[in-house]
Amino acid sequence: MIKARITVTLKAGVLDPQGKAIEGGLSALGFSGVESVRQGKIFDMEVEGDDKKAAQENLESMCAKLLANTVIEDYHVEIV
Amino acid sequence: MIKARITVTLKAGVLDPQGKAIEGGLSALGFSGVESVRQGKIFDMEVEGDDKKAAQENLESMCAKLLANTVIEDYHVEIV
Repeated sequence: MIKARITVTLKAGVLDPQGKAIEGGLSALGFSGVESVRQGKIFDMEVEGDDKKAAQENLESMCAKLLANTVIEDYHVEIV
Repeated sequence: MIKARITVTLKAGVLDPQGKAIEGGLSALGFSGVESVRQGKIFDMEVEGDDKKAAQENLESMCAKLLANTVIEDYHVEIV
C-alpha cells in the first residue's frame, strides 16, 4: 500500500474570499500582524500496490480529472 | 515577514463523508485501487515580523481558537 498527500492550492492571482474572511475573523479575535491567508485543500490517499512511480502518475491523473480545477488551482502529489 | 503553512486534518476515527464521496467519484471515473481518501485543509499564512518562535506560538493559538475544531481535528504549523 502506498500513502500519498495531495495538496491543492489556488493559483497566484486568483481571488480567495474564504482566505479574506479568515483574515477578518482573526483580526476580530484580536490577532494582529496577519498579512495574508490563502486556503487550500489536502487529500490523504491510500492506494493499492508498491509501484511508487505508477502511483504518482495515477494520482496526478486523479488530480487533473477530479480533485483540482486546473483553471484556477495547482496540485502537488507527494508520496509519503 | 514569515511564511507558514498550517495543515488541519481530521483526527483518526472521525468519519469523513467528503472523503468517502471522493472515493466514490474516483471509482465512478474508472480509477481503481484507491483504498482511502481523507480530506483536510491548509492555510498558507504570511505574518509580520522576523521572530519565528513567536510566530509559531501565535499561529498555534490561531489554530486552537479559529482555524481548527480541536474536538475532531488536529493541526500542524510549519514555518516555511
